[in-house]
Amino acid sequence: MSKRKSAHLIPAAINPLRQIRVMGRLVRRAVKKPGTAPGTLVHSGEKKVERTVIRFLDYDADNFHEAEVPDIAACVPLKDSPTVSWVNVDGLHDVDLVRRIGEEFEWHPLMLEDIVSVGQRPKLEEYANALYIVLPMLRWNTETRQTDEEQLSLILGERYVFTFQERRGDVFEGVRERLRTQRGRIRTRGVDYLAYALIDAVVDHYFQVLEGIGVITEELEEEVLLEPRQSTMHRLHGLKRELLTIRRAVWPLRDLLSSLLRDDMERFSEDTSVYLRDVHDHAVQVLDTVETLRDVVSGMVDLYLSTVSFRTNEVMKVLTIMASIFIPLTFFAGVYGMNFEYMPELHMHWAYPTLLAGMLVIAIGMVIYFKRKGWL
Amino acid sequence: MSKRKSAHLIPAAINPLRQIRVMGRLVRRAVKKPGTAPGTLVHSGEKKVERTVIRFLDYDADNFHEAEVPDIAACVPLKDSPTVSWVNVDGLHDVDLVRRIGEEFEWHPLMLEDIVSVGQRPKLEEYANALYIVLPMLRWNTETRQTDEEQLSLILGERYVFTFQERRGDVFEGVRERLRTQRGRIRTRGVDYLAYALIDAVVDHYFQVLEGIGVITEELEEEVLLEPRQSTMHRLHGLKRELLTIRRAVWPLRDLLSSLLRDDMERFSEDTSVYLRDVHDHAVQVLDTVETLRDVVSGMVDLYLSTVSFRTNEVMKVLTIMASIFIPLTFFAGVYGMNFEYMPELHMHWAYPTLLAGMLVIAIGMVIYFKRKGWL
Amino acid sequence: MSKRKSAHLIPAAINPLRQIRVMGRLVRRAVKKPGTAPGTLVHSGEKKVERTVIRFLDYDADNFHEAEVPDIAACVPLKDSPTVSWVNVDGLHDVDLVRRIGEEFEWHPLMLEDIVSVGQRPKLEEYANALYIVLPMLRWNTETRQTDEEQLSLILGERYVFTFQERRGDVFEGVRERLRTQRGRIRTRGVDYLAYALIDAVVDHYFQVLEGIGVITEELEEEVLLEPRQSTMHRLHGLKRELLTIRRAVWPLRDLLSSLLRDDMERFSEDTSVYLRDVHDHAVQVLDTVETLRDVVSGMVDLYLSTVSFRTNEVMKVLTIMASIFIPLTFFAGVYGMNFEYMPELHMHWAYPTLLAGMLVIAIGMVIYFKRKGWL
Amino acid sequence: MSKRKSAHLIPAAINPLRQIRVMGRLVRRAVKKPGTAPGTLVHSGEKKVERTVIRFLDYDADNFHEAEVPDIAACVPLKDSPTVSWVNVDGLHDVDLVRRIGEEFEWHPLMLEDIVSVGQRPKLEEYANALYIVLPMLRWNTETRQTDEEQLSLILGERYVFTFQERRGDVFEGVRERLRTQRGRIRTRGVDYLAYALIDAVVDHYFQVLEGIGVITEELEEEVLLEPRQSTMHRLHGLKRELLTIRRAVWPLRDLLSSLLRDDMERFSEDTSVYLRDVHDHAVQVLDTVETLRDVVSGMVDLYLSTVSFRTNEVMKVLTIMASIFIPLTFFAGVYGMNFEYMPELHMHWAYPTLLAGMLVIAIGMVIYFKRKGWL
Amino acid sequence: MSKRKSAHLIPAAINPLRQIRVMGRLVRRAVKKPGTAPGTLVHSGEKKVERTVIRFLDYDADNFHEAEVPDIAACVPLKDSPTVSWVNVDGLHDVDLVRRIGEEFEWHPLMLEDIVSVGQRPKLEEYANALYIVLPMLRWNTETRQTDEEQLSLILGERYVFTFQERRGDVFEGVRERLRTQRGRIRTRGVDYLAYALIDAVVDHYFQVLEGIGVITEELEEEVLLEPRQSTMHRLHGLKRELLTIRRAVWPLRDLLSSLLRDDMERFSEDTSVYLRDVHDHAVQVLDTVETLRDVVSGMVDLYLSTVSFRTNEVMKVLTIMASIFIPLTFFAGVYGMNFEYMPELHMHWAYPTLLAGMLVIAIGMVIYFKRKGWL
Repeated sequence: MSKRKSAHLIPAAINPLRQIRVMGRLVRRAVKKPGTAPGTLVHSGEKKVERTVIRFLDYDADNFHEAEVPDIAACVPLKDSPTVSWVNVDGLHDVDLVRRIGEEFEWHPLMLEDIVSVGQRPKLEEYANALYIVLPMLRWNTETRQTDEEQLSLILGERYVFTFQERRGDVFEGVRERLRTQRGRIRTRGVDYLAYALIDAVVDHYFQVLEGIGVITEELEEEVLLEPRQSTMHRLHGLKRELLTIRRAVWPLRDLLSSLLRDDMERFSEDTSVYLRDVHDHAVQVLDTVETLRDVVSGMVDLYLSTVSFRTNEVMKVLTIMASIFIPLTFFAGVYGMNFEYMPELHMHWAYPTLLAGMLVIAIGMVIYFKRKGWL
Repeated sequence: MSKRKSAHLIPAAINPLRQIRVMGRLVRRAVKKPGTAPGTLVHSGEKKVERTVIRFLDYDADNFHEAEVPDIAACVPLKDSPTVSWVNVDGLHDVDLVRRIGEEFEWHPLMLEDIVSVGQRPKLEEYANALYIVLPMLRWNTETRQTDEEQLSLILGERYVFTFQERRGDVFEGVRERLRTQRGRIRTRGVDYLAYALIDAVVDHYFQVLEGIGVITEELEEEVLLEPRQSTMHRLHGLKRELLTIRRAVWPLRDLLSSLLRDDMERFSEDTSVYLRDVHDHAVQVLDTVETLRDVVSGMVDLYLSTVSFRTNEVMKVLTIMASIFIPLTFFAGVYGMNFEYMPELHMHWAYPTLLAGMLVIAIGMVIYFKRKGWL
Repeated sequence: MSKRKSAHLIPAAINPLRQIRVMGRLVRRAVKKPGTAPGTLVHSGEKKVERTVIRFLDYDADNFHEAEVPDIAACVPLKDSPTVSWVNVDGLHDVDLVRRIGEEFEWHPLMLEDIVSVGQRPKLEEYANALYIVLPMLRWNTETRQTDEEQLSLILGERYVFTFQERRGDVFEGVRERLRTQRGRIRTRGVDYLAYALIDAVVDHYFQVLEGIGVITEELEEEVLLEPRQSTMHRLHGLKRELLTIRRAVWPLRDLLSSLLRDDMERFSEDTSVYLRDVHDHAVQVLDTVETLRDVVSGMVDLYLSTVSFRTNEVMKVLTIMASIFIPLTFFAGVYGMNFEYMPELHMHWAYPTLLAGMLVIAIGMVIYFKRKGWL
Repeated sequence: MSKRKSAHLIPAAINPLRQIRVMGRLVRRAVKKPGTAPGTLVHSGEKKVERTVIRFLDYDADNFHEAEVPDIAACVPLKDSPTVSWVNVDGLHDVDLVRRIGEEFEWHPLMLEDIVSVGQRPKLEEYANALYIVLPMLRWNTETRQTDEEQLSLILGERYVFTFQERRGDVFEGVRERLRTQRGRIRTRGVDYLAYALIDAVVDHYFQVLEGIGVITEELEEEVLLEPRQSTMHRLHGLKRELLTIRRAVWPLRDLLSSLLRDDMERFSEDTSVYLRDVHDHAVQVLDTVETLRDVVSGMVDLYLSTVSFRTNEVMKVLTIMASIFIPLTFFAGVYGMNFEYMPELHMHWAYPTLLAGMLVIAIGMVIYFKRKGWL
Repeated sequence: MSKRKSAHLIPAAINPLRQIRVMGRLVRRAVKKPGTAPGTLVHSGEKKVERTVIRFLDYDADNFHEAEVPDIAACVPLKDSPTVSWVNVDGLHDVDLVRRIGEEFEWHPLMLEDIVSVGQRPKLEEYANALYIVLPMLRWNTETRQTDEEQLSLILGERYVFTFQERRGDVFEGVRERLRTQRGRIRTRGVDYLAYALIDAVVDHYFQVLEGIGVITEELEEEVLLEPRQSTMHRLHGLKRELLTIRRAVWPLRDLLSSLLRDDMERFSEDTSVYLRDVHDHAVQVLDTVETLRDVVSGMVDLYLSTVSFRTNEVMKVLTIMASIFIPLTFFAGVYGMNFEYMPELHMHWAYPTLLAGMLVIAIGMVIYFKRKGWL
């Protein structure tokens, strides 16, 4: 019965082994084979798409062109066109393609290496002809109730933005819609505003992740308060690790956005900087919430431990009371069960009821004693 | 009986589920739908008032005018009048109204977005024609014995102050009284002093919140020391979360006030800066107290755990003493309860009293042993 | 018996309720009613003296004059006299007096407000015509074995020092003696040196407080190591709170002294600055010691918990050994106490001694087993 | 049976003593005998190679020469040659050799002292004619599943790089291959790029170490969740110490790389600085991962403790249920085993079955009670 | 037996009371009586030598003179001699002597006060004619296996160095030897190099202390892993306090050395600064090691607690298994020991063996059940 009730409360995994698999790897293989020359392109992740897809959007205030192209050659003219161009590449395993793009757009070899090495820390690298930004793209998976993480590389050039993702599907559909339908001011603004809009979309999704985790935290809090079980602690441990992952992603992001605001005012117009400051505030708010959740979860671990201790204490009390009442009584019964020849009490007429009465007195005395101690 | 006594001590919730509901949401949905254009106005909170109410106060040293107006149109002339104007808006769900105000007063779209998005972190944004400040307005609810939180947006323009609140009822009645009755110097001072007076009123109420929490902390401390129960730990957990909320509100506020002191001396006259420094000191003192309370509460968790451990130890001792004394005696009684044909002791005349005496010796020996161990 | 021994060790409170009362309030009502105009004088503490007492000392290298005056009027001439004057006011409840002093000496209203609001954080405020310093005056009460706290306001003007205290009795008797007897260089130095001497006297008393707490800490350490009881943990909790209080007082004081050294070299001659640096070093040393004591106390909590766990383990072992030896034996006795008609063993001649021998073997086997496990 | 299963899970040491030995020394004897003159060369480590081996590589874009030389004399001409030279010395016990090298290349005595004192903290020392860098060279030993640590001294002169290692075998084989086969740009670049390439190779191996530790962490996590035993905690302790060691090595390394980037731009061309920044990012990523692993391991300790507590609780429940059911029943059986002459129940015909039924009722009542409590 | 084995492992104190005494005072009386005039000389420590001993060394590259003098008068001429002089004073209780030295060499009164007040924090004070440095002189006492602490005052004047110690015996014998035998460059260098050499000797001895503590830590680690007892926790507590003491001494020392490097380049030639940087690196390494040891010790406390918990769990299992098997069996034996007249089973021929068989089945069932649970 109690099982069924809890099943209602925790739809998620109880099997601890599943718990582990779900948690994902702690240390992702993040860089090339040691000793390889720097700038060597080795894709470090799994191949997550069948075919690398290149899609570009080219626009100014009046024109808009969107297309999926088979090869990078089609994008090269965009490099020097006066319009704003956004080229998005889904899939990183085709290192040759990345190298060719790099050559066409004259990017630094280290930048190319970073694009294909997934598992990077968020970072910002200023090269002569482009600004390179790595961001973790987090999305809340409502089915597995976990965070999906993907690496996003964003390259901001003079007149173009490149984005590289690990797989299809991203957080940019809203931005694309605004570009297509000319909603907001995005079409009338430059390439820096496009970069801002993309970063903003990434950070906005962090709030969705936090919302999902917040719900799980509240579920677990209820579980800890109402009926803590061993699996509760396992889930708390999983939650802690989830929060660690997000924290690891967002801490450096905040610094990254700070230095965008501080140093690179040339690339970003003053007008766009106001918006960047807004994204920065959002990142700080995400961090704040993550820290609060960590504090709450660590409080829940204390709560869990105290509850288990308290329950052990309760169990002990029941045992002690039962044993303390009946063990002495059993002893007295044992005494008069002895077979000595000369036991005068055995032959007295009132001995038996007297003994029973005596036992009752002892039992009641014990009960009063335990009541006084507050154990009953 | 012990129940009744504790009921006297803890009028607050013991039902852990109620405890959770009372704690409130950990992660408030704080921003617009991801991907929406920045500057899109979406009210993110619940609708907390029926009708948005606009009330303005317009004054200089000699004149004072106060009115509740149906629409913002009535306030527009205040914008350029030489008098100081304070317009207060209760209710944020009418985003159209906010947009119209923003257009009339030429505010930045991001500022408008922030006004209607509740759940913001305290922040300070300097725009060309206005200073935008978000503050958490905390009040102690003496009925629920919890903190009520509301978001306050304060916009400081050239000659006006705007305040936006989530619902009616605020912490500014004292300021209004001083304006009406000309108490203090407030009427003779500029718009910067008004802004200071409002911030000061907000921060002053934090002390009331801390006082309320301080009383609860002391109650719980008494409970932990005198008769810790499982609900004690639940309440401690709730207290921790309450403190986390306040801390999350006040930390950024302190930085906000520091940067007001550092950077924006143009908006605030040197004379008013002295007063701002005073508010800053109050914010620091609030933080100080919150940190101290957190330390005390975390010490109480230790105390609780140690008390439960200690009690388990006490319970174990009782059990061990009872069992250690009577189990051997019962065994001896059992031996002479056996039905062997040839048990010479059974037929000896002094066997029974001798055995009883032997048992007494064993029991006394045990008692002495436990006394020596300090268990009795 | 064990009680008497411990009574010798812990003369202090064991009654946990007394413990709480002794701890004092966590959150002191520190500021005026929210919304009151700044500069409104409201005494926030208890009235600690019957009558406010004003005492001044006026001196230069050759002259010395000391008097208790009924009213501030007598002190006004000191303001512009070339001699050094020190006016001390005991008792803060007479806000009218404070206001009159403020008017005579032309002090800022916020300064007056701070003087009468007790429960302030140590702070330093530079006004045009005076430097305002709030300091916590801690003294070790050897009777209650606790820290007495009092708020000291020190105002350093051009030619005068004002000190405001909550009650009579202070830490300045040594300074007065040196002024009277012309010991040291104090009479030949300026007003800045007097201010230093007073601050120095305050900080010097912190060491006495630390000494008192150090003695209690060592007592408790002995108690934790030798015979931890539940009251030990209560006292540890009280000690933690005491340390929190001191820390809260001294942390900002250190920063205050740093900024005195950094910024205000005009008020303090270079010669006096060397002495101020010395006080600063003392404050740092106090903080250092407080942090060390906190670390030690937190280690003692660990020690306490581990000791209780260890003892529970010891108790369990005794129970387990007793039960494991006698429960099986009792069972065998029970078997041969059964009344079956056909139990051949009962009629064998050697059955009884054989069984006894068997029981002995089992018991010895158990003992050996437990010895091997290291439980005996 | 359970033993065999766990053997499958934990191939590593269970013997706690082996655990300790494997952990290695906490405090390595790191400096010369106290009081010795600075610059005195005393090799502080064990002698790890039979014979010190000197191997040099000399190259420019077109030429490449590699040789193992018996004595340093052969290397002296390299000092002023226009080619880039890399001299590697394996083995530090031959302090005379080091002194001679130092004299030939005019190094500061303290630098020589540091080269032969193993157990140094990573540090960077700028001397007039050379830059001296100490780095910990960590490698993952796949056999012992532990980190091997070795001290690397790297001296960057005008036209040469010297490396000193404790023993043969290093992380530089990849660099040597690139030099030999002219892969990458390394042969066309200067001595600063060679220094970078060597540091890069060292840092790249840290990721291998982290990968190895990550695998062990995940194994232990599985163990803690599925079947925590006492050895699990021992292994967790060992893991913590391993992480401490790495952290101690990498923290100062990060600062070292920062100051290389900040200060020493003269030694490193701007072109190479981009690469150095990349190494710096890697070091930061290593630190990040170490901190995450530390958090995870500390969460695992909590998990372990909670699991043990939970299990104790489970064991207690079984005991309490068994005892609570049977102890009262045994008492009743004992009562009717008494030998009183006048026990009327004994002679009633239905007494025995009635008693049995009563016992059954009590037992069932107990079971229902425990079910209600959720203990069954 | 187990006692003897452990005696072998822990030669150190088990008596907790001895433990306390050995730990030493937490709060040393460090300053003069509160309120005393600054510059009043009061020796605050115990008198550790019978007679204050003054010994000077006077040298340049060619001459060397060493003598023990009865009075300071003999040293005064050294003040202005062109040679380097080092005067060492053992014993601080003779405050008159210190005052006379101070007068002869024109030292600031606060400096004299600091010299005789032991228990100072390491600090650096720049006076017009001398640099005053307080250092803790730590030495490892191999007999008590504890750290001996002594306060060293070092005064660096134009042409002289003064050192003041609490008692005879110091860490400078190596420096004296080098001065006498002209080993190293010390004789050819100035007074700044002498000061460096002395500081270096002090810091070098910290490594010896760490080595001693490292050995104890490893011993305790072995004890915790192999056979934790209550005294283990006491020793861990003592170790923590020892580490606290060292940390308290070395933290400010590191800052002191940093500011020597930063600010006071005039007193220290650039040549000597290289050496000072080396001492600074050593201090950082000491701190690093102390922090690592603290982390390890705190991990050992966790390990200890988990082991005790685990053992309690083991003990509980044994009890539960014994009780669960035998208590039901005893009950059945009790049933057939009842004396009811009408108990048909008693008269059946196979009842007894059938019951015995049934009991066996129950016992085996229990054993299988516990095996399945993994408790056996």
